[in-house]
Amino acid sequence: MADFTVAEFETRMSLAQSAMSKAGLDAILLCTEAELRYFSGFRTQFWQSPTRPWFLVLPRNGDPIAVIPEIGSDLMSRTWVRDIRTWASPDPVDDGVSLLADILSAFDKVGLPMGQEASLRMPLCDFYRVQQKSCVEFVDCSELIKAIRIVKSDAEIAILRIICGIGSNAFDRATELFCAGQPLSEAFRAFKIALLQEGAEDVPYLVGAAGQGGYGDVISPPGKTPLQDGDVLMLDTGSSLQGYFCDFDRNFAIGHASDAAKQAYDTLWQATEAGMQTARAGATCADLFHAMHKTLGGGISDVGRYGHGLGIQLTEYPSIASFDDTVLQPGMVMTLEPSMTISNGKMMVHEENILITEDAPILLTKRAAPELPIIR
Amino acid sequence: MADFTVAEFETRMSLAQSAMSKAGLDAILLCTEAELRYFSGFRTQFWQSPTRPWFLVLPRNGDPIAVIPEIGSDLMSRTWVRDIRTWASPDPVDDGVSLLADILSAFDKVGLPMGQEASLRMPLCDFYRVQQKSCVEFVDCSELIKAIRIVKSDAEIAILRIICGIGSNAFDRATELFCAGQPLSEAFRAFKIALLQEGAEDVPYLVGAAGQGGYGDVISPPGKTPLQDGDVLMLDTGSSLQGYFCDFDRNFAIGHASDAAKQAYDTLWQATEAGMQTARAGATCADLFHAMHKTLGGGISDVGRYGHGLGIQLTEYPSIASFDDTVLQPGMVMTLEPSMTISNGKMMVHEENILITEDAPILLTKRAAPELPIIR
Repeated sequence: MADFTVAEFETRMSLAQSAMSKAGLDAILLCTEAELRYFSGFRTQFWQSPTRPWFLVLPRNGDPIAVIPEIGSDLMSRTWVRDIRTWASPDPVDDGVSLLADILSAFDKVGLPMGQEASLRMPLCDFYRVQQKSCVEFVDCSELIKAIRIVKSDAEIAILRIICGIGSNAFDRATELFCAGQPLSEAFRAFKIALLQEGAEDVPYLVGAAGQGGYGDVISPPGKTPLQDGDVLMLDTGSSLQGYFCDFDRNFAIGHASDAAKQAYDTLWQATEAGMQTARAGATCADLFHAMHKTLGGGISDVGRYGHGLGIQLTEYPSIASFDDTVLQPGMVMTLEPSMTISNGKMMVHEENILITEDAPILLTKRAAPELPIIR
Repeated sequence: MADFTVAEFETRMSLAQSAMSKAGLDAILLCTEAELRYFSGFRTQFWQSPTRPWFLVLPRNGDPIAVIPEIGSDLMSRTWVRDIRTWASPDPVDDGVSLLADILSAFDKVGLPMGQEASLRMPLCDFYRVQQKSCVEFVDCSELIKAIRIVKSDAEIAILRIICGIGSNAFDRATELFCAGQPLSEAFRAFKIALLQEGAEDVPYLVGAAGQGGYGDVISPPGKTPLQDGDVLMLDTGSSLQGYFCDFDRNFAIGHASDAAKQAYDTLWQATEAGMQTARAGATCADLFHAMHKTLGGGISDVGRYGHGLGIQLTEYPSIASFDDTVLQPGMVMTLEPSMTISNGKMMVHEENILITEDAPILLTKRAAPELPIIR
């Protein structure tokens, strides 16, 4: 059942422990899906249920401690984690609070991701009670966790490569899947089925839009309006394999493409090229942003950035933005996602997934066609 | 694009405002997917990205205020919400904090869901800053929100009825979809495709297991072990339509069923019958629990409850548990989910979805066969 070897998890744990030593932390408390999965290997869609909280404690010395509802004990026992403490959950009076507080009380200073991109997946009232009962000082450790997760191992990259290939294969079937007259919602359904057929385990994310020569936004679910001649159809999928995501889009013109649409597509394609020319170890995210921004001729859409990290979440740290000075390192997996406003209320977006190396980045997706493909 | 009429949202808002008056709250702050969607109609899978926070402020007097990243302005403008304040996100220095704090500073006492089943989907550090900048007193309003969401409107019930029907139709194809020798992961894939073909928009949740005469847990992703004669295969799906979930499972024996498996299945089926006999307006969740527990002959599996609410989340408040004194009301949609331990490390679970009325509940799922179906 394990997605990775025990050695892989030991490496992750050891990196966390070194970082804790440097930061003067006695332990780290994690309560979110991605972080629990990353350090324990505990993978389940049961996170969809908000009822029960789940915790993982990483001590600076010693082994990780899973503090979880009984319903998860069987699955957790199949991970590399050996120290599993459970309680009968849900419990309206004490839903893991005393158990967790008791474990944490052995520590003074405990890291908790509280910074950008972090959530607290437990009731805030219960967090306050844990704080009070354990007498622990909680400090933000978001950067510490991000610094570890940002560089993917060979085993992670292997999975990301496969899921990006699966997405590419599904997009290759566009002419078979999409046609004029098809309601957008049916185009989505056909594409989800194709992604599963090609080998995706799940399609947690599929957004898109269609409109004459461009579209209004890039995060909507589909309506039932039929695709029509002159529409640009964009589909953006975060499909997953073993819990790792691809995240890229493709644009297609239905019937014919306007000159404005063709030109916008070309500009975005060239911006991605500029991104790929710049994306290598040593450059910063801001460098990458500026290279793409220059090709786009300035101006920025509502998306607010030109790509991001990718892995066990659809979007991960860092951001390809002018404010982000993160230095690229070999093993980082990123999306390049330039977007532009074509005219008032019309935009276009383009996206590829790449692996950062010392030299030119390695494309994980099959590069989009250089000209806007037309579905006739 | 709207999933519901403006009148439906006005009713939800008005219920919230009455409850705020009673509770002495000046406003409510929401930051989680289900709550934003429930009160605004803002539906997107973009919540998969942890990067940006999203806020909705419900004042006791006046209209709701969406405080959101620019990337969502187009989609939000298609909801009933008219007061939309945006900022360029992500912003590492001030990701909506000042904008939100400024709006909240008009209020003294602000409700925030902080109790059981609640999460804080924003960085805790930013929450502290909002608290400090706005000088607002935050108090838990989980119960207030739950009391509104727990009773489904006719429009919500209509969607829930359809998605439960879609799930039932997909399960009806079991003999076509599953067979001995098929890796469990391929059974999952076939079933996901069938759910989409039958009309599900998404399959955010599919868990299950297979094992000789029973299975070890009920929250795992599938492995590649082929189904074999004597296995009991269980699939439990939370498929969705317009963001509303069905949540039920079915068991199938592969080739043949042992007497122990048949008997466990019968016990669970009878426990569900007992639940349906008891489930009507005026009874409590605890009554429902005890009726099912008696049929099961005592003893409880690691699941910790015998069902729960259902709607825009896979599991919603309340819990069918001995500790839950929630009184059933017409319009509540629930799962009945008895589970039992068959032998050491082997369990079985059974699940139906029902609508509570003044009289007998209405089954939303097509009732499971009274005897364990065998796939030959």
